[in-house]
Amino acid sequence: MKKPLILITNDDGIYAPGIRSLIKTMRPLGNVLVVAPDKPQSAMGHAVTIQTPLRLHLLKQETDYQEFSCSGTPADCIKLGEKVILRGKPDLIVSGINHGSNASINVLYSGTMAAVIEGAMENIPSIGFSINDYSPTGSFDHCSNVIRSIALKVLENGLPDGICLNVNMPALNGTPLKGIKITRQAKAYWDENFDERTDPHARDYYWLRGDFVNLDSGEDNDYWAINNNYVSIVPIQIDLTAHHMIDTIKNWNIEL
Amino acid sequence: MKKPLILITNDDGIYAPGIRSLIKTMRPLGNVLVVAPDKPQSAMGHAVTIQTPLRLHLLKQETDYQEFSCSGTPADCIKLGEKVILRGKPDLIVSGINHGSNASINVLYSGTMAAVIEGAMENIPSIGFSINDYSPTGSFDHCSNVIRSIALKVLENGLPDGICLNVNMPALNGTPLKGIKITRQAKAYWDENFDERTDPHARDYYWLRGDFVNLDSGEDNDYWAINNNYVSIVPIQIDLTAHHMIDTIKNWNIEL
Repeated sequence: MKKPLILITNDDGIYAPGIRSLIKTMRPLGNVLVVAPDKPQSAMGHAVTIQTPLRLHLLKQETDYQEFSCSGTPADCIKLGEKVILRGKPDLIVSGINHGSNASINVLYSGTMAAVIEGAMENIPSIGFSINDYSPTGSFDHCSNVIRSIALKVLENGLPDGICLNVNMPALNGTPLKGIKITRQAKAYWDENFDERTDPHARDYYWLRGDFVNLDSGEDNDYWAINNNYVSIVPIQIDLTAHHMIDTIKNWNIEL
Repeated sequence: MKKPLILITNDDGIYAPGIRSLIKTMRPLGNVLVVAPDKPQSAMGHAVTIQTPLRLHLLKQETDYQEFSCSGTPADCIKLGEKVILRGKPDLIVSGINHGSNASINVLYSGTMAAVIEGAMENIPSIGFSINDYSPTGSFDHCSNVIRSIALKVLENGLPDGICLNVNMPALNGTPLKGIKITRQAKAYWDENFDERTDPHARDYYWLRGDFVNLDSGEDNDYWAINNNYVSIVPIQIDLTAHHMIDTIKNWNIEL
């Protein structure tokens, strides 16, 4: 059987420990191409680079492995990997391991997940992996088995067009993972609270900070799962239409 | 009756003609606060600024009108407008008028729509307006009446939590608009085709370019509507869960 071709990216940058752990897990599964940002691109959402040219820099070349850094965003990395380096489609895209949860509405801000959504737009099976750990020395390798299992299942089953997976994993906490839950995106929001400061030239500036507030009492959502030591998998779709609202708004009878 | 408080932003930057047209249309409807990027932020997706501090610059102050430029992204503008300037919620957020269509999957790349989705996360009724016109001298004012009608309906009816509107309008083409269609996001993709160049130092670089490819033969989608001289309104949701896929993936029985 032909070895699958796996494209790997992230948003914490090519030297982040999360992508190093992911590369280690994926290499035994197939031929691997890494195209990842040359600097951290967290919270870049689905940004793409149209105002400046993009650069690729080859870092490593082996028979079953190539590694490039890219001056752009995670979404740019997927586009360049596919259109410039491969000149074809990979069998699987994996992104991460993100340092920090992309559960709930964080999926909308996440560069890690933008790369995955970009894959879904191209109908390539794509998975984002994130870990609910914010410590600078966070561990990633305890998730290696679960990442391997999920990647193999996706290689085996594929994913429907326009669908990708958002996988969030608990931090290493001394107790074994309880299992895997297939969940929905939790209802939550960020309660932002800007830190207002004054610079040495007496001008104000603002640092964004915030507290994540979970509003969802269900036990079938991603926030609950990762906080109860389960791995969460949310199937994500690129169709944002609120289909159930179409008739409601038709009934508004808006006139020109 | 108390005048509604309307927060306006965009992604083409505060000096773009699209936001000037939108401000002119919205001012008669209420008290207006403009917080818009100080430079173009197109294709920024749902980026937020966490690596650098943000700046606000007051440009105009009248009794029913305030205008600020902001160093950040459209999503940052909404957060700063709400948390730093208003210290409360506006009654309505409008974003645009974007110079170029945000129909179909462009909603996922769009800074204009990221600001609107940010509003939906905060449960503030929010509408993005875009025009299917790429000419540098594109006209916006022919859409003034339809923008006013949609904004008034949303002020009257509100929108459910987590739902916002993506409004796309045809370019001025010499024939009157045919009407308003409530639609779904068209199935389409960007066929990217990087322009590969070499710089004077013999290093390669890449410019992103692409062709939009519509795959959707329906007449109930946003792409069809704007190309048939209708205004399109797609209700958009912030829940990206593909609920119909949850049971399918449960049946994969992925093991730890």
